[in-house]
Amino acid sequence: MARTKRSTSKKSAVRVFGLGGLNEIGKNMTVIETDEDIVVVDCGLGFPDDEMLGIDLVIPDVTYLEENQDKLRGIVLTHGHEDHIGALPYVLKRISCPVYGTRLTLGIVENKLMEHKFEVQPQLLCVEPGDTVKLGELKAEFIHVNHSIADACAIAITTPQGILLHSGDFKLDLTPIDGEVMDITRIGELGKDGVRLLMCESTNVERGGFTPSEKNVGRSLDDIFAKNTDKRIVIATFSSNVHRVQQIIDISAQNKRKVAITGRSMMNIISAAIRLGYMSVPDGVLIDINEIRRYKPESITIVTTGSQGEPMSALYRMAFSSHDKVELGAKDLVVISAHAIPGNEKLVGKIINEMCKKNVSVLYDAMVEVHVSGHACREELKLMHALAKPEFFMPVHGEYKHLLRHKQLAEDMGMEPDHIFVSPDIGHVLEIDGKGARWSGTVASGQILIDGYGVGDVGNIVLRDRRHLAEDGLIVVVATVDSRDGYIISGPDIISRGFVYVRESEALMEQVRTLARNVLNECLDTNNFDWADVKNQVKDALTRYLSNKTGRKPMILPVIMDI
Amino acid sequence: MARTKRSTSKKSAVRVFGLGGLNEIGKNMTVIETDEDIVVVDCGLGFPDDEMLGIDLVIPDVTYLEENQDKLRGIVLTHGHEDHIGALPYVLKRISCPVYGTRLTLGIVENKLMEHKFEVQPQLLCVEPGDTVKLGELKAEFIHVNHSIADACAIAITTPQGILLHSGDFKLDLTPIDGEVMDITRIGELGKDGVRLLMCESTNVERGGFTPSEKNVGRSLDDIFAKNTDKRIVIATFSSNVHRVQQIIDISAQNKRKVAITGRSMMNIISAAIRLGYMSVPDGVLIDINEIRRYKPESITIVTTGSQGEPMSALYRMAFSSHDKVELGAKDLVVISAHAIPGNEKLVGKIINEMCKKNVSVLYDAMVEVHVSGHACREELKLMHALAKPEFFMPVHGEYKHLLRHKQLAEDMGMEPDHIFVSPDIGHVLEIDGKGARWSGTVASGQILIDGYGVGDVGNIVLRDRRHLAEDGLIVVVATVDSRDGYIISGPDIISRGFVYVRESEALMEQVRTLARNVLNECLDTNNFDWADVKNQVKDALTRYLSNKTGRKPMILPVIMDI
Repeated sequence: MARTKRSTSKKSAVRVFGLGGLNEIGKNMTVIETDEDIVVVDCGLGFPDDEMLGIDLVIPDVTYLEENQDKLRGIVLTHGHEDHIGALPYVLKRISCPVYGTRLTLGIVENKLMEHKFEVQPQLLCVEPGDTVKLGELKAEFIHVNHSIADACAIAITTPQGILLHSGDFKLDLTPIDGEVMDITRIGELGKDGVRLLMCESTNVERGGFTPSEKNVGRSLDDIFAKNTDKRIVIATFSSNVHRVQQIIDISAQNKRKVAITGRSMMNIISAAIRLGYMSVPDGVLIDINEIRRYKPESITIVTTGSQGEPMSALYRMAFSSHDKVELGAKDLVVISAHAIPGNEKLVGKIINEMCKKNVSVLYDAMVEVHVSGHACREELKLMHALAKPEFFMPVHGEYKHLLRHKQLAEDMGMEPDHIFVSPDIGHVLEIDGKGARWSGTVASGQILIDGYGVGDVGNIVLRDRRHLAEDGLIVVVATVDSRDGYIISGPDIISRGFVYVRESEALMEQVRTLARNVLNECLDTNNFDWADVKNQVKDALTRYLSNKTGRKPMILPVIMDI
Repeated sequence: MARTKRSTSKKSAVRVFGLGGLNEIGKNMTVIETDEDIVVVDCGLGFPDDEMLGIDLVIPDVTYLEENQDKLRGIVLTHGHEDHIGALPYVLKRISCPVYGTRLTLGIVENKLMEHKFEVQPQLLCVEPGDTVKLGELKAEFIHVNHSIADACAIAITTPQGILLHSGDFKLDLTPIDGEVMDITRIGELGKDGVRLLMCESTNVERGGFTPSEKNVGRSLDDIFAKNTDKRIVIATFSSNVHRVQQIIDISAQNKRKVAITGRSMMNIISAAIRLGYMSVPDGVLIDINEIRRYKPESITIVTTGSQGEPMSALYRMAFSSHDKVELGAKDLVVISAHAIPGNEKLVGKIINEMCKKNVSVLYDAMVEVHVSGHACREELKLMHALAKPEFFMPVHGEYKHLLRHKQLAEDMGMEPDHIFVSPDIGHVLEIDGKGARWSGTVASGQILIDGYGVGDVGNIVLRDRRHLAEDGLIVVVATVDSRDGYIISGPDIISRGFVYVRESEALMEQVRTLARNVLNECLDTNNFDWADVKNQVKDALTRYLSNKTGRKPMILPVIMDI
């Protein structure tokens, strides 16, 4: 008998869980599942924490989606930031389904996918804010919101158990650069119809009030351009902040300046934004960075990457005099139009200090309002709750402390505590049906580390070794022995790296060698040829000795060659 | 002929330079020198930056002072924070001179020195605010200022070229806990007499307005205690903030709570402060941490270290359930009465998240005013300038961007730009004489890294290796060869650490082994027994291969034993 569709009288329960973005910043990925279908909201990457030495990126573990590939109807994207789309190139090698997003979002995704090879080219399907796409028995409606990138959306997913609303990243900007205020009416309509579950971002839940409008930055830039007519102006910002760049271009044009772009991601995104109609550039304003010498410095604006102090970014290279096109000096004003992401403060400070030493004038957000956040502060979060009036609420996108404060905010607005679900971690499943909502088990979830070309080949053991090596370096002890006659043929040789400056510590290294030789000889003399044990004895003896002598515990690697 | 003193008609020029605290945070140390005498203000340590893997502390290079030991009259201390006194145990093994400071400052110094061995016990000489000590032809006057530690002073040094005023770390607190407002009158008197050079701290030069009074924290704590009568209250703060701890004890006593202390540095400083009369504890309020089980949780306050999220601090251990005396749960309120120092945000966040997961209530500075800064904001800096009315100004204690903004602040107050000296780096000498002030050469200066018991034995090469190892791990290639007959006796064996999880990469490791063997055989076949060259060939071949294959560049350590 052929499998028949369930009758609609017995509606499928809906299961909701995060594969990322809960109890962590970034790596945002939310799964919505019924008996028949799965839809995924976003597919972002995360950045390694300080413990993950040498790791480039972190992506979600999508084992659950691989195992349920047959139910997978699509990935819907809220916007084009890395923490929402960055894992797509990796994840789309594991799972296969169409990807839906607005035009700019998909433009950025396309750029990313081009750098990877796929057996089957992923299917990217373009939507406009207001569109609804059908995904099995689920439907996803894209709703325009304001954010620090154009074309950002909240997504309302219609399920057998009612509407689930995912805010995406958002802010309310009443004077947005593109003229389109977040579609609060539509969210209010959904609220009237009845939102079953609100999933709302929590990034700025610790900040009171409203996030200022992007226009404020324009006003600051107006002032800065007016006061610095004798200077070349270099502005660093996030490449994806198309509206910020648009303002810079407009103000430059008003001030009769040409604009040159530097930094790979900045060039990529601006060209995509222009091609797709998200930016309009007056004729003749944009020039190639190679052309800047042909103009007076004071009639040039340079837009650059590197606002987070990223080593080897264009701004970093300018600051440290290794940019091949731009040399900074006393005639330059550099504006850092961004806020340092936690963890990047020192990097940004390093660049600023370096530029100050070159007599460059530097303006940054501690001095003047050259940046505004893209995320809702507490009053905007309250607005979202007031409009959506959800029956259940799951705070998303934040560390545990943020999720918890968002819960408190919802309670302050009158929600019952038992209607609010703070996910203890990713992979915890919230089940919603006619009777209500409740936690219901877990699914496989986690983080996959990317190091170079390797996806997932670096795990805890490798990281533990890297931390050990980083802390105190290593000592290799090599000896060739003859186990038949029980004597050392050659060595032990001692090689150290990252432990101590050897030329100034010859006596110490000689003592290490003597100690290793003594332990080895003792083992050989007692016919102990269990090399694992012998190595452990060498390791222990050296660790003890060095710890007493230097207060350090380098990694000891004994190598015994028995011939 | 005996050496005669110079006639006072020919006054010695004064030379001023920093051995630390300029273009860096911490490691504060300023030297004032005439032809006959040297006085040093502070002797602080710095903390390693992210690049200094495995380093515990950073101290100033005092080579110049060692070479001029005969002129050294004393070290005068502004206050007892680590970044002003922490290098003393190391520096006093290199140089010998009396150390002057107020009672609490020296109490803390004594505690530190006890952990070190000295051939000649350092001479600590106690002063009170208002005292002046004679140091050769120089004199140092200690002037009371407010700060986040009790007994802090600015220091005015009378020289043949007039008065040099060093602000130390300061703020203006009009309602200080100990009742003593910063001695603005004395600074004003010095200003009237004529201050030749002001050296003023720059920590908060980016913050407008005035720093709030320490009393504000007390008011917040009053509220918190009143609202949480059903909870045990745990408060984490800086151990050296004696006034903060005094307020916590007083408010606990008013609320009929007993106070227990945990964390080594907290116990050390509180016992010193009580012994020296800087704290007064009502009878019976302090209890041993071992006694807390004898009281109801809601009648206990616990004061703890760990407000910066330091791994293995008392609060860290509580959060991660490894504190042997305190187990946290839903009946606990933890107050983090501190602001995360840049770089520590993630550590503090980690602890907060962990406690939130244990259902502990947590309050921190993003939620309520449980911390105020100890440093002067812009208006207080202006007050210092207005009172001291210096002829010359050298901003100190800050990164270059801070020093530069402090210069701008002084210019805004009417100082001539050419009377302001922003030191391009430590070791730059400012010379002051009857004709004016000018940069005049440099002296030896730098940073000495402390790793375990090692002082200065880790330098750039060791750190570079640690960074390399941390990034991509290492591969050791070991082979025993017979160079007479030109063949490999044993190996090559491949050992890797921190590179890749070997069990899942056996094929890759086998290819590495084959490649290494081929290179070795080729060398041996062509009678190349220049082992340095052979090792380089192995290194290059493996680096190239692995870089192509994995996108990583582990450290390659070839070891060849020729027998």
